[in-house]
Amino acid sequence: MSERTFNFSAGPAALPVPVLEKIRDEMLVLPGAGASILEISHRSKPFEAIIAAAEANLRSLLSIPDEYAVLFLQGGSRLQFSMIPMNLAPGGASADYLITGTWGKSALDEAKKIGPARVAYSSAESNFDRLPTPDQLDLDPNAAYLHYTCNETIQGVQFATEPKTGDVPLVCDASSDFLHRPLTIGHYGLLYACAQKNAGPAGVTVVIIDKKLLERSADNLPGYLNYKIHADNDSLWNTPPTFAIYVLKLVTDWLKDDIGGLDKMYQQNKTKAEMLYEVLDAYPAFYQGHAQPACRSLMNVTFRLPSDDLTAKFLAEAKEHNLADLKGHRSVGGIRASIYNAMPVEGVVTLRNFMDKFANANA
Amino acid sequence: MSERTFNFSAGPAALPVPVLEKIRDEMLVLPGAGASILEISHRSKPFEAIIAAAEANLRSLLSIPDEYAVLFLQGGSRLQFSMIPMNLAPGGASADYLITGTWGKSALDEAKKIGPARVAYSSAESNFDRLPTPDQLDLDPNAAYLHYTCNETIQGVQFATEPKTGDVPLVCDASSDFLHRPLTIGHYGLLYACAQKNAGPAGVTVVIIDKKLLERSADNLPGYLNYKIHADNDSLWNTPPTFAIYVLKLVTDWLKDDIGGLDKMYQQNKTKAEMLYEVLDAYPAFYQGHAQPACRSLMNVTFRLPSDDLTAKFLAEAKEHNLADLKGHRSVGGIRASIYNAMPVEGVVTLRNFMDKFANANA
Repeated sequence: MSERTFNFSAGPAALPVPVLEKIRDEMLVLPGAGASILEISHRSKPFEAIIAAAEANLRSLLSIPDEYAVLFLQGGSRLQFSMIPMNLAPGGASADYLITGTWGKSALDEAKKIGPARVAYSSAESNFDRLPTPDQLDLDPNAAYLHYTCNETIQGVQFATEPKTGDVPLVCDASSDFLHRPLTIGHYGLLYACAQKNAGPAGVTVVIIDKKLLERSADNLPGYLNYKIHADNDSLWNTPPTFAIYVLKLVTDWLKDDIGGLDKMYQQNKTKAEMLYEVLDAYPAFYQGHAQPACRSLMNVTFRLPSDDLTAKFLAEAKEHNLADLKGHRSVGGIRASIYNAMPVEGVVTLRNFMDKFANANA
Repeated sequence: MSERTFNFSAGPAALPVPVLEKIRDEMLVLPGAGASILEISHRSKPFEAIIAAAEANLRSLLSIPDEYAVLFLQGGSRLQFSMIPMNLAPGGASADYLITGTWGKSALDEAKKIGPARVAYSSAESNFDRLPTPDQLDLDPNAAYLHYTCNETIQGVQFATEPKTGDVPLVCDASSDFLHRPLTIGHYGLLYACAQKNAGPAGVTVVIIDKKLLERSADNLPGYLNYKIHADNDSLWNTPPTFAIYVLKLVTDWLKDDIGGLDKMYQQNKTKAEMLYEVLDAYPAFYQGHAQPACRSLMNVTFRLPSDDLTAKFLAEAKEHNLADLKGHRSVGGIRASIYNAMPVEGVVTLRNFMDKFANANA
């Protein structure tokens, strides 16, 4: 255990240590299965219990209504970028997109390959440092849906609440802040998240979809790309990523039993983020935050230092303090500290203290 | 360890115990990474080394020429059923399909949603108990490709060599016998396999493709469905299933270092299969093999007993001998013993001895 660092990777990202320990302890024999979780059929009773528990945990943590289906798919958010317009905007219907960062832009680019897609807001001009106010939204009241990215991992901007879209179904890429706070699922038409930030390992993507929207999926869609087929088959139409679903089940067990639910998780996430933003605000000329203060992410804290040399020095000295994977994405530069659910408070305290000392020594 | 059964699951299926032990031992800290394999970025140096080693192992085991790309994708064979015609048969080109079992039929059904697809052979009339002789193939010399399934998991029929297709690129679903013997990759245009039979856990699909065919992938294909994008980005265009690729790397290490390569693996697979087919042939009225003898699978041994009662009794008594997951697929009935690479000889010997005793007691 002493070899473990505080891992600020943007994703795949830190997992709770008790989850890793359980995976380790059950690797040779999943209790009652006579084999490893890696070796058992997706149609076996032990796996059926796991996928059912994973879904039940999500329904409990997020109070997901019965009118919504929960799907476990492969292909990451990238495949969702295509599946969403293919399923939800049939017959050349137009969709609206809010572009508040790199991932929203990628979603739009894929949607345009399928059919008409409008930009209802973009902060590209200011390098995605802000979010829209309600009056800045240019909404099409007849749009098939409105797509937005509730947390932009690369830029570190995050919606605190959902945009209002009237009768237009809201489609949300929640990949990098899923399960970080309670949500009102009834506000969404579809919400999706790849697991590798807050919910599990790379390889499984959760889709929560209003069952009414399943009626839009055309029969002639390629089978794997058809939400209705997955919903009708309880995500077992093809072999699902069984191990990734098992880990997601363990992570949601941890959220329920060890953390005590998403309200408590949210409090802890706010506390952790505040610790870092306080340091940015204490040295505003030295630590230059990328996101405007009103839309700072609780998950990805992004900032630049006054020079590339200081950035390199920061990263090298951070490593000596056991603080790893803090380099920012090339499109923003500087530093990115990803502090998802599983990052312990101790890791954030260590980073904050290091930042404080580093600023004092170098500012 | 004593809780482990001999696991004859058709997939996800048995893995080598040394592989499971290594996963267990490295679960908290991947050596040199400071974190679990589940927690590290797909762009980190430790993971780059893993995916490079996985590819190098496959290239070494199968003597894959440089003219072929090796891709690690998600979505299983089901997604390949759609990606193949979308990429390889653009502009309404027609493709040929050999239908020798359930999976070939499923591949054809998906291809028909994309464009014209012809049946060049089908054994549906005899419930997929046989394979074509060369003169039974009705080939279109202008086909965009010919698709076949080298081992039908459900029916237990297996091609010993590739069908001859002239200049038409051969596309092979090798999901359930990948890595069970050496191949001449130069015979194929594209060969694909989901990992969860012989190569690793569910969640990663290997695609080996002649780079010349990548030129067929149209720019307007959905990004995740475009082979060329994955090849141009070394399977890192999106976050790949990092853990599944890590396990595939360990399984291929085992094939190289513990088994000694695919020639030796093939000898062992032939020995294991012969043990079971000998029992079928010793009691032909009692154990009724599904596949015609000339096309029996080395991976999935399928047979029926004289009655449903005897089948139920067989399964119940097998369980008492620690022999698990032997129930046949509903479309064939009876028993299916899946004996992939990782099934130890000891497991097959135990099953053979049980079958011998059971036939003597009940025939």
